[in-house]
Amino acid sequence: MKVTLLVIGKTDDKLLKELIDKYHKKLKHYARFSYTEIPDPSRRKSLSIDDQKEQEAQKIESLIDKQSKLILLDENGRTFSSRSFASFIEKEGLQGNSNLTFVIAGPYGFSDSLKAKAHLLISLSKMTFTHQMVRLIFSEQLYRAFSIIKGEPYHHD
Amino acid sequence: MKVTLLVIGKTDDKLLKELIDKYHKKLKHYARFSYTEIPDPSRRKSLSIDDQKEQEAQKIESLIDKQSKLILLDENGRTFSSRSFASFIEKEGLQGNSNLTFVIAGPYGFSDSLKAKAHLLISLSKMTFTHQMVRLIFSEQLYRAFSIIKGEPYHHD
Repeated sequence: MKVTLLVIGKTDDKLLKELIDKYHKKLKHYARFSYTEIPDPSRRKSLSIDDQKEQEAQKIESLIDKQSKLILLDENGRTFSSRSFASFIEKEGLQGNSNLTFVIAGPYGFSDSLKAKAHLLISLSKMTFTHQMVRLIFSEQLYRAFSIIKGEPYHHD
Repeated sequence: MKVTLLVIGKTDDKLLKELIDKYHKKLKHYARFSYTEIPDPSRRKSLSIDDQKEQEAQKIESLIDKQSKLILLDENGRTFSSRSFASFIEKEGLQGNSNLTFVIAGPYGFSDSLKAKAHLLISLSKMTFTHQMVRLIFSEQLYRAFSIIKGEPYHHD
């Protein structure tokens, strides 16, 4: 299974980056996992929020495999338990759609046009987390999902 | 306002511990905040899970101020948005109940007896997070709640 995680902007905090890297290393035991930090356009020039989101959308689309399903982390998305998220990933694999691209937005979220193109929107919580911390939380959930699929003792209900 | 966060067991990961400490320092600008890691009984001797939860409950109860409200982080608790969580804290302050103790369980959760004594159970997400990572996520939410109450620009909807 091919799993790609795209995020907007660098992970500024070195400690957070190290924690995230740990889960990415573990993920590579389970899937062809790749992780890309897309440069944040706001760092380069002054743009309106809508223009920034549109630029990010174009960049995201240019990076996605044609055969990959696009899944966006969005506060209004569907909520999953860790087990149901694992089931979702397992089913996608069984259906032969074994190429999933997850994207974590920058601080302003996704453009409507990108949301319309997505296969699914996922929400981690009703609470708002920092978009940087979401990287850690979601990376751990991806690792957890694969450990559930493989029947390993990492997850407790 | 007095806010106490009790957790079961040490934070094993040094990186996580440093990140958590950052939010605790920021929290101290807003509230009389204190944080205590209660030694994990399972580290001392072999106990059944129920006995361990009962021992933890007794220790937690012994550490709580009589005038403090007890709020447990529990997967079956009430979910809040960050704004509604801030409103909850603000209301408790206005009602003169300005002493809140939040507790994050160890890996096995809380005893039923402790849950019955709690003022409120809070769930961060339908997903299961590591009990160590919950410390970081919840500490950031506490900081976010106070920044919302103070009208500071940290939180974006």
